[in-house]
Amino acid sequence: MDLATLLGILVATGLVIGSILLGGSGSWFINYPSLMIVLGGTMGATLINYPMADLISVFKVTKNAFRHKTFEPIALIPQMIHFAKKARREGILSFETQLKHIDDPFLARCMQMAIDGMEAESIADVLNTEILWLEERHRLGAEIYTTMGTFAPAVGMLGTIIGLVQMLMQMKDPTAIGAPMAVALLTTFYGTVLAYLLFLPIAGKLRVRSKQEILSKQMVLQGILSIQEGDNHRIVEQKLKAFISPKARTFSLENE
Amino acid sequence: MDLATLLGILVATGLVIGSILLGGSGSWFINYPSLMIVLGGTMGATLINYPMADLISVFKVTKNAFRHKTFEPIALIPQMIHFAKKARREGILSFETQLKHIDDPFLARCMQMAIDGMEAESIADVLNTEILWLEERHRLGAEIYTTMGTFAPAVGMLGTIIGLVQMLMQMKDPTAIGAPMAVALLTTFYGTVLAYLLFLPIAGKLRVRSKQEILSKQMVLQGILSIQEGDNHRIVEQKLKAFISPKARTFSLENE
Amino acid sequence: MDLATLLGILVATGLVIGSILLGGSGSWFINYPSLMIVLGGTMGATLINYPMADLISVFKVTKNAFRHKTFEPIALIPQMIHFAKKARREGILSFETQLKHIDDPFLARCMQMAIDGMEAESIADVLNTEILWLEERHRLGAEIYTTMGTFAPAVGMLGTIIGLVQMLMQMKDPTAIGAPMAVALLTTFYGTVLAYLLFLPIAGKLRVRSKQEILSKQMVLQGILSIQEGDNHRIVEQKLKAFISPKARTFSLENE
Amino acid sequence: MDLATLLGILVATGLVIGSILLGGSGSWFINYPSLMIVLGGTMGATLINYPMADLISVFKVTKNAFRHKTFEPIALIPQMIHFAKKARREGILSFETQLKHIDDPFLARCMQMAIDGMEAESIADVLNTEILWLEERHRLGAEIYTTMGTFAPAVGMLGTIIGLVQMLMQMKDPTAIGAPMAVALLTTFYGTVLAYLLFLPIAGKLRVRSKQEILSKQMVLQGILSIQEGDNHRIVEQKLKAFISPKARTFSLENE
Amino acid sequence: MDLATLLGILVATGLVIGSILLGGSGSWFINYPSLMIVLGGTMGATLINYPMADLISVFKVTKNAFRHKTFEPIALIPQMIHFAKKARREGILSFETQLKHIDDPFLARCMQMAIDGMEAESIADVLNTEILWLEERHRLGAEIYTTMGTFAPAVGMLGTIIGLVQMLMQMKDPTAIGAPMAVALLTTFYGTVLAYLLFLPIAGKLRVRSKQEILSKQMVLQGILSIQEGDNHRIVEQKLKAFISPKARTFSLENE
Repeated sequence: MDLATLLGILVATGLVIGSILLGGSGSWFINYPSLMIVLGGTMGATLINYPMADLISVFKVTKNAFRHKTFEPIALIPQMIHFAKKARREGILSFETQLKHIDDPFLARCMQMAIDGMEAESIADVLNTEILWLEERHRLGAEIYTTMGTFAPAVGMLGTIIGLVQMLMQMKDPTAIGAPMAVALLTTFYGTVLAYLLFLPIAGKLRVRSKQEILSKQMVLQGILSIQEGDNHRIVEQKLKAFISPKARTFSLENE
Repeated sequence: MDLATLLGILVATGLVIGSILLGGSGSWFINYPSLMIVLGGTMGATLINYPMADLISVFKVTKNAFRHKTFEPIALIPQMIHFAKKARREGILSFETQLKHIDDPFLARCMQMAIDGMEAESIADVLNTEILWLEERHRLGAEIYTTMGTFAPAVGMLGTIIGLVQMLMQMKDPTAIGAPMAVALLTTFYGTVLAYLLFLPIAGKLRVRSKQEILSKQMVLQGILSIQEGDNHRIVEQKLKAFISPKARTFSLENE
Repeated sequence: MDLATLLGILVATGLVIGSILLGGSGSWFINYPSLMIVLGGTMGATLINYPMADLISVFKVTKNAFRHKTFEPIALIPQMIHFAKKARREGILSFETQLKHIDDPFLARCMQMAIDGMEAESIADVLNTEILWLEERHRLGAEIYTTMGTFAPAVGMLGTIIGLVQMLMQMKDPTAIGAPMAVALLTTFYGTVLAYLLFLPIAGKLRVRSKQEILSKQMVLQGILSIQEGDNHRIVEQKLKAFISPKARTFSLENE
Repeated sequence: MDLATLLGILVATGLVIGSILLGGSGSWFINYPSLMIVLGGTMGATLINYPMADLISVFKVTKNAFRHKTFEPIALIPQMIHFAKKARREGILSFETQLKHIDDPFLARCMQMAIDGMEAESIADVLNTEILWLEERHRLGAEIYTTMGTFAPAVGMLGTIIGLVQMLMQMKDPTAIGAPMAVALLTTFYGTVLAYLLFLPIAGKLRVRSKQEILSKQMVLQGILSIQEGDNHRIVEQKLKAFISPKARTFSLENE
Repeated sequence: MDLATLLGILVATGLVIGSILLGGSGSWFINYPSLMIVLGGTMGATLINYPMADLISVFKVTKNAFRHKTFEPIALIPQMIHFAKKARREGILSFETQLKHIDDPFLARCMQMAIDGMEAESIADVLNTEILWLEERHRLGAEIYTTMGTFAPAVGMLGTIIGLVQMLMQMKDPTAIGAPMAVALLTTFYGTVLAYLLFLPIAGKLRVRSKQEILSKQMVLQGILSIQEGDNHRIVEQKLKAFISPKARTFSLENE
């Protein structure tokens, strides 16, 4: 479980609920028709906006926002240095036997291509296309949540307008607008909570996770290409360290 | 029929209508002059913004948002592998007779150029220009709906201001503002519904459909160029799989 | 006269006026000081924002939004095919005598360079620079209207704040706020009408016209370069058709 | 003095003041604490946002928005044609003596490099870097004003909220909210005036001036490179005319 | 301490507090539950949006906004000219002994690569990758503050809606809405202050600092590459001066 996501949801939800209970009855903020119109309207607009298959796949992607996966680009470097040394000693074909022990399927594919003797340029071409379209698919997940974060407050405002029209139409005593006006505001409340405490932050986390994964894949690709060119392990190290911060680099040197 | 678009419209419309009927008379929300000013004002502004021909063609494009067309980029790969094998066995000219059995006009055109012996670079040039301008025409459709989605709430707000001015001008009893104020809000209601439950989501779906079509065309182009270069079918397969997700790839292997 | 622009203005203006007259006296919406502050304030901010020369030239460009000019990129293709055939038969110098019959100054300039024996790369360089800066000048026209469309509602809101302050300062009887409040709202009304029914849609149309002109110029340049390279007319045709939609292409074939 | 900037400020200020005086006492709109919080708050936020040195230098740049400098890119062309002819007759070294008569330091530097025999590619490299960073410094000036134009209305709204809270806290008689509410609105008024009638239009003018200067520098660079390559003056003319509009070109031919 | 940041915070805070005290009791603006919901909600949404590690590292980056570091790109030029002269006299290997006296780790790394005899292209590759990812990490810091500046006003508005609903639900006497309405507005007040007087300006300063650092690194890289190519010190000077403004250049000449 990603600690930050969990903690963030607890803190935000806790404070909203706390602030609701502090000021009066919690039941004032529960209105099923209002909740239904906001959730349903947002979902409806999103269904028009995206194909069903994309929406289903996005729920699978969402778990990335909650899964604990501290990305360690540094961890790649010693591994690549090891590969570089081995490649210089025993040749690149010596990886053939190791291939099945490699967990990361991207690294395995990358290495397979090098073993197969594909040219560096072709490998870069194929894998850069792959990274490009991976980025595109990641982007879709974040985009769907961003879209929902745009629709939710709009639908919330729509619900409030409906409530206001109904209130105004039957208003006899202008001093009695309290409760119906409060109910009308609830859809705006739901829309804002969904957008700013759920959809938009999740979209943000998906974007961050995507960047980390792209960075990691670019380091793998760069490393394998460098090894294939026969660079010695110092050059490989230097090329990969360019991707990470100088501070993290020193740390890596100590741990190496 | 695209299930998601249909379902989305049903859900969104149903919930809005339900929420209207739940809170009072549905007739409160029907006001023909208000509807006329929002629809007409939006249409008027859109007519100033775009040439007539573009607006007419966009209605033809709109059916793309509703047409059921589950795009299967994977389906292209076995076909391309088949072509690659045939090209290696019988030469690229052997496609001449097959050309009339190919449904996809882009694929047919692409293959015709390869048969005609055009250079790879020229084929890529011509077809990339074609893809570029196709993207441009697609973009126009989505842009028109986005523009309408921007104009509709603005015109709705305009109608509300007109209603408020009229109400305030003849206001004698400040406690009787209920009904005229409700009527004034209706244009904002119409504008918001049109924008967020119709125009903007349709613009979104057109964008998604466009991306799928571009992706498919780029795979076709890449595949034919690879075959023309004489790549064996394994390389063709690898180049095309870079376009799709690893998960979909495995699936494709099973089905192949 | 561009039919869509005219029709759009008629529809939008008609509906706004109709909706005003339907709900009461039209004179409620005429307030010269309010109109003056919105028009003048917008014009003042625009004058600070752009040099005088640019503002004057933009009024000349504006007629593009109203002029009827159905752009027919297809019409270029048979002409270019004709040139290609002639160039293969009689050489590129044979165009010398035809040059004065060519209406389009860009085409004429392009052809003159080819006749003068400038290298393809130099022609492309010079004319791409020309297209780039043409795009820049076009962009300026659309940008000025977009800026006015941003300033107008802001100045309208400014007028409303001024009106509110004045109303609140002299308010004795809170039940008599009707008329002054209505007057205060008029500047917002003017600002919104100017922005959403005039400035922004005109900016949009200028952008569309610009794209059409750029497309036409790029087709001319591509065609002449292809002819100069000695491509036969089938290749020229294929290169130019890549710019237009497949549907329009078939149509062109019938008419050719 | 740039006529448009001056006129714009006069028109905008005049109309705002006129509209204030027309509707009541001008003193209603003067409130020093309100003015202080808007100006001070905007300045405070801007100080956090930018280093002191940048803020000081931006005031120097601001005079560009007010200085009268009608840019005449056409004027460069005859000068460059003259240089081209001279270079063909007497060689590029003949400019050595003229160098001190050239006012434009960029042109002088450009020519010095050509005389020094630097390669075309190196000259382009160095001067394109210079143009790039000049653009960056210009952009900073416009950006600072845009930032102030974003902060001013926000700080204005902040002041209004402070005023509203104070008014509501001591409100005894709800019919007496007039004057304090008007005062609360003044900060929003100041913020809007500063943003839309001063900061944002000045940002716009700085952007326009920057584009003109960049265009002029790119024409100088292109011209000198073309002369150095030994192009005859007709080619130089053609290359430079690509930067300006065809209409301006004809005009230039007459004046040449 | 960065003077501008400190001064900005003092001015902005001072004016807000002053304007609060001027209009009544300061205690009206202190409401712990309101403050808690705004701070906590913003923090919660930010935690969902970013991984914990990024949030922690951003606090370290924040000190950049407050640290006094007047960047002097000019100071680099004499140092580089000195290096260029030395390299021409004694060869590039002569820097080996000086390396430990160089404070800037980027310059040291750059020089080490030149001494190691890496090719110019490889050095540029590795260090441009490093600059690219440094920019990316910098961008993250500014982005997190921008995100907080977007969430804070939204959460503030959420708090105000909660307060309004609670007030409306228990409203008996419509003339007594003063105090609860004022309290409801406080969350919007807190959200606006945090966003516009803290988060967004700090995001801006981080962006400015990042640009300065990138500029400095690009000058170092350009300088070392130029020295490695064996350029004489005049060329090195010219290449580096392209990065700074002509005015600063003259100044540098005097100081050199």
